[in-house]
Amino acid sequence: MSAEIITLGHGSGTGLTRKLILEIFQPLFAMPSLEDAAQVGERTIITTDSYVVKPLFFPGSDIGELAVNGTVNDLAMKGARPAFLMISMIIEEGLPMATLKKIAGSIASAARKADVKVVAGDTKVVEKGRGDGIYITSSGIGYLPCDLELSTRLIRKGDMILINGTIGDHAIAVINARNDFGLTPAPQSDCAPLHEIVSNLLPDKDIHFLRDATRGGIAAIMNEVYAETGLGIILEEERIPVRREIEAVCEMLGLDPLYLANEGKMTVFCQNNDEHILRKMRKHPLGRAAAIIGEVTDSVKGVYLRTLMGGLRPCPMIESDPLPRIC
Amino acid sequence: MSAEIITLGHGSGTGLTRKLILEIFQPLFAMPSLEDAAQVGERTIITTDSYVVKPLFFPGSDIGELAVNGTVNDLAMKGARPAFLMISMIIEEGLPMATLKKIAGSIASAARKADVKVVAGDTKVVEKGRGDGIYITSSGIGYLPCDLELSTRLIRKGDMILINGTIGDHAIAVINARNDFGLTPAPQSDCAPLHEIVSNLLPDKDIHFLRDATRGGIAAIMNEVYAETGLGIILEEERIPVRREIEAVCEMLGLDPLYLANEGKMTVFCQNNDEHILRKMRKHPLGRAAAIIGEVTDSVKGVYLRTLMGGLRPCPMIESDPLPRIC
Repeated sequence: MSAEIITLGHGSGTGLTRKLILEIFQPLFAMPSLEDAAQVGERTIITTDSYVVKPLFFPGSDIGELAVNGTVNDLAMKGARPAFLMISMIIEEGLPMATLKKIAGSIASAARKADVKVVAGDTKVVEKGRGDGIYITSSGIGYLPCDLELSTRLIRKGDMILINGTIGDHAIAVINARNDFGLTPAPQSDCAPLHEIVSNLLPDKDIHFLRDATRGGIAAIMNEVYAETGLGIILEEERIPVRREIEAVCEMLGLDPLYLANEGKMTVFCQNNDEHILRKMRKHPLGRAAAIIGEVTDSVKGVYLRTLMGGLRPCPMIESDPLPRIC
Repeated sequence: MSAEIITLGHGSGTGLTRKLILEIFQPLFAMPSLEDAAQVGERTIITTDSYVVKPLFFPGSDIGELAVNGTVNDLAMKGARPAFLMISMIIEEGLPMATLKKIAGSIASAARKADVKVVAGDTKVVEKGRGDGIYITSSGIGYLPCDLELSTRLIRKGDMILINGTIGDHAIAVINARNDFGLTPAPQSDCAPLHEIVSNLLPDKDIHFLRDATRGGIAAIMNEVYAETGLGIILEEERIPVRREIEAVCEMLGLDPLYLANEGKMTVFCQNNDEHILRKMRKHPLGRAAAIIGEVTDSVKGVYLRTLMGGLRPCPMIESDPLPRIC
């Protein structure tokens, strides 16, 4: 590894994080994949994620709800029914008790909505200046309803790529909360539990792979799929749902929505026989704006966006996210 | 709650942590107990713990090994065979890559020794000055070998209390590493995985409850047992194994070894019929210095130490640990 120290980019969920995992963690650990979830036993999925989002509260969500939904979604993406959560907190000395209570309340409410039980936890406190309010690690366990495989190994040339709604909302909500660009109304995070919309879709042999588009956005997912399958991907700009106000902020800041984190969006890779999966997605409240956004192909090497002008723009894996601590 | 902000004491694992759990977390969450492990399903135990020990490396161990053994021990204390771990890291920007590699290597080596697989993980990075090198959250899953209950509910008057060896080693090793009291040789942490010595003991109907004596030391365990059972406890000072050099440091610093954290020690509450459990413990390398250190009784209310002089000294639950970030 060329870099000799850890940089913010190593936590971006994109290229540098991938390098850390490939070069340091995977050779040492028994991790079957680069993912943060793993199957243990016949029907059990476990997953873990730390949350360091800044600020702790932002329009549409907060670190507590994020910690629940993020872990619920990691389980759901494997096809598992989320069942139990564990919450471990690293609190900075001086955090107002009222803030902790609010976050704990938010965790409880999100857990109720996602029908999971918080069954265990841990609390550590670090000195002022050695943390940032609170960091939360949530770990979860979920159960597969049946023998179910969802894997990049199943992805084939011609597979359609779907998304359940607009992209970029979470990242822009957090950046706006951090910098106060004075947008009215303030953009809202899309933070939501995806287990229900997933359970409406599964089991379905046409569905090959699910992945929630968090850090690194949909571009990171597409590049991972390309890296693992060797198959190219063409996304269609005109089909990718982006709210007008999110697009405007992106233009202002020079950000590309494809690379922005979401917390309630997933991509579905499925066989392209008819549009029954799209129709099912649209029936769920979290899939109203679902769309077919691209295709797996062997006509290109890598990930490309067909722009509104008809050209093919490359969307490479980036080394680092321009927006640290987005989740 | 009277305190309006979080203090270091809230992470001490003693009185204030207990208050947080009782007053904030338990009413909101579905936590069946105050512990950091929970049974889910018939034979499955899950657990989570964050590690913020300072410094990251100290004689006898480091944060990586601690994160593995701590979680392995939480599973073992429930009688479960530890099987899988997940490791989530919150790294401070600027951590040397070599340090991360060393810690990852230490995690891998400890996992091998404890016969658990690290199957998933997550990496987040926070800005310089918002962390302290690295914080690690490890979560684990383990399986009960048979229908097995280990609970404070089973503890009865007359139960013996055993420990598998000397107390205070871990805490003094860490404090000495932090302050450099110039002790030669430097005290070593007792960090060790206890799953094997536990599996040599179980199943055994005479064993009612196991608990590893981490934050808050054996005094915290005894006070929790008293709080949950209403039964008094008398510890025998002359029987509690403490290394001479640890005792000397404790005297110098005004610390009580009963309240110090260990990372390879467990207390066993068992029926007092013969000493077969003590004999079994002593057969294992981690139990060579095992001893019967006290008894559950209704002759006192609370936790007491029978001193070398023969008096009964109260050992109450303390609000806060004098040594923050010990694990």
